[in-house]
Amino acid sequence: MVVKYKLIKKDNKSHARLGILSTPHGEIETPVFMPVGTQATVKAMTPEEVREAGGRIVLSNTYHLYLRPGHELIRDAGGLHRFMNWDGPILTDSGGFQVFSLGPLRKITEDGVAFRSHIDGSSHFFSPEHAMQVQMALGSDIAMVFDECAPYPCSYEDSLAAKERTTRWALRCKEYHSHPEQSVFGIVQGGMYRDLREQSVDELVKLDFPGYAIGGLSVGEPKPLMYEVLDYTVPLLPEDKPRYLMGVGSPDCLLEGVVRGIDMFDCVLPTRIARNGTVFTRQGKLVVRNAAYARDFVPLEEGCACYTCRHYTRAYIRHLLKSDEILGVRLTTIHNLHFLLNLMEDIREAIREDRLLEYKDHFLKDWQA
Amino acid sequence: MVVKYKLIKKDNKSHARLGILSTPHGEIETPVFMPVGTQATVKAMTPEEVREAGGRIVLSNTYHLYLRPGHELIRDAGGLHRFMNWDGPILTDSGGFQVFSLGPLRKITEDGVAFRSHIDGSSHFFSPEHAMQVQMALGSDIAMVFDECAPYPCSYEDSLAAKERTTRWALRCKEYHSHPEQSVFGIVQGGMYRDLREQSVDELVKLDFPGYAIGGLSVGEPKPLMYEVLDYTVPLLPEDKPRYLMGVGSPDCLLEGVVRGIDMFDCVLPTRIARNGTVFTRQGKLVVRNAAYARDFVPLEEGCACYTCRHYTRAYIRHLLKSDEILGVRLTTIHNLHFLLNLMEDIREAIREDRLLEYKDHFLKDWQA
Ligand SMILES: [Zn+2]
Ligand SMILES: [Zn+2]
Repeated sequence: MVVKYKLIKKDNKSHARLGILSTPHGEIETPVFMPVGTQATVKAMTPEEVREAGGRIVLSNTYHLYLRPGHELIRDAGGLHRFMNWDGPILTDSGGFQVFSLGPLRKITEDGVAFRSHIDGSSHFFSPEHAMQVQMALGSDIAMVFDECAPYPCSYEDSLAAKERTTRWALRCKEYHSHPEQSVFGIVQGGMYRDLREQSVDELVKLDFPGYAIGGLSVGEPKPLMYEVLDYTVPLLPEDKPRYLMGVGSPDCLLEGVVRGIDMFDCVLPTRIARNGTVFTRQGKLVVRNAAYARDFVPLEEGCACYTCRHYTRAYIRHLLKSDEILGVRLTTIHNLHFLLNLMEDIREAIREDRLLEYKDHFLKDWQA
Repeated sequence: MVVKYKLIKKDNKSHARLGILSTPHGEIETPVFMPVGTQATVKAMTPEEVREAGGRIVLSNTYHLYLRPGHELIRDAGGLHRFMNWDGPILTDSGGFQVFSLGPLRKITEDGVAFRSHIDGSSHFFSPEHAMQVQMALGSDIAMVFDECAPYPCSYEDSLAAKERTTRWALRCKEYHSHPEQSVFGIVQGGMYRDLREQSVDELVKLDFPGYAIGGLSVGEPKPLMYEVLDYTVPLLPEDKPRYLMGVGSPDCLLEGVVRGIDMFDCVLPTRIARNGTVFTRQGKLVVRNAAYARDFVPLEEGCACYTCRHYTRAYIRHLLKSDEILGVRLTTIHNLHFLLNLMEDIREAIREDRLLEYKDHFLKDWQA
């Protein structure tokens, strides 16, 4: 089956929308946040814990899995779902973002990208076809086209070239792809230039993908600029297809993305800051590693229903983090994922009840306090 | 309440025995293995996972908790049980073994031991009284006396001196201790010398502790020598008190200890080797990190009922370990703890059914194959 999006409800005061994404591994409600499991594991979590925290679809990284343990090994293991014991939907990125980020370790031609492994320096080549081949072996529900992501800042000429190559490569991906249980999403590029974004949408929509990502954002530009690009790009996308904003996961950006019509998000932020001892609260981020919390015998956040907050104090978690105990990272990760996934649930509820903008104002007031 | 031991059944062909240990935090069946939670956490595990793996009582380390986060902080948190979210029994060691192991960082007098922290080099002093004070603040169910553990090898004279000081310090511990919900166990010393062990038992039993540990073993001596010391020491201990062999946790030593009449064991072995990618199987240890298991799509051990073996393959676990993913260590730790705790359950069942020696022969035949 192909991934299908069903629009349930449009918000009456913003571009936000409620929907259902149907995949070979079940249906999920949108807008949705996808926890990232780079190396076939959401860092520090079991699949059951991801689910308990509210996770329904995870993202995994093609570049990393290709290098280690290898996509053919995962195919022989019965596919990525079985390998990592996750029976919900999986989206894989194309590896494009990673190989373009390798800097001096990579060389780009029209055919594809030659690069050296960040693990052992070995030589590799990724083309649109190869990115499809790897993702087909992984067997994710949603594969992404191999795109060229322009950096920020980037000249008009370079943004144009990256956008054009992304369109040509999207076509090659579409033509090469042949996995009946996997759907391929296109990726809109075009940098911070309105006409390029319009052209990119136009060209990709002609290829008729079952979903569209907006790439090339959250790459270092100021947030207002990202919102501006979303303002003029999202409305161009077909209403009956899901829209995925790549690499975005801070609470404020999730809210701003949703009101602009975004349905899907992913980001390493909640799990990464958790490992550094930083947690989300309604009043903003809290660095529980700090000495200020050494004798703070309250949960990370009063009233939070997550496993961590039901059983442990800031003082205990700080002790674990200071002592390099794995449980410390587990507990902060559980809380952060729960926080974001709970936020998405609140957002869906608010759309359902026609009070999203009020919810957003209320949330951001506390968050920025 | 004080910790009490109830003898349920004596094996008819060995010194093994079934019993019930009653503590302020519940009853546990013996012989029992105690997972070690050095820094107020069984490394990589939640308390629920320890329980699911079969853990019923955990050991925590006074030396480590005194240094970080500090016993007064833990007392103010409501005690160690509440701090670490473990509502079963806890045994704390006295810190003696750790400070004696500090080598050049410590200086021993009759009063106690001056030492420098392994964390920041700061100066500290532990006396029998202080070891009691710290353990009372932690609020464990079972505290251990502050003893002097002789190294191996050790001369008769030095072993004698350590044994005599251990007796004097045991008396000071007993006299100082005043926590009504905590019981203090004595520790038998005497090195590898039969008359010293006999004297130590004799002197400690006169002090009438509710339980006795055998210390100074598993310190580098050959296993047959340890078994020999147990052979002549354990029968001297009172039948109505639990006997605890400190620092022992390999499957063969657990079996050999049980048949010699030991009721309690603790060891970091299952969790430590798990972190290095080594797991227990009935056929001995298996280094799942090895390349040989890269494409081995079977559980760590066929038929094992642990969470890890029900859901994951050796190939996946190896991938996680090679990729430095926390989940890898979590999965090997779960399996290893389950293996040992399941072994103890099998042992208790075998005693109950009068077939312990057969079980032991059978197990060791596979284990050493
Ligand atoms: Zn929480
Ligand atoms: Zn297992």
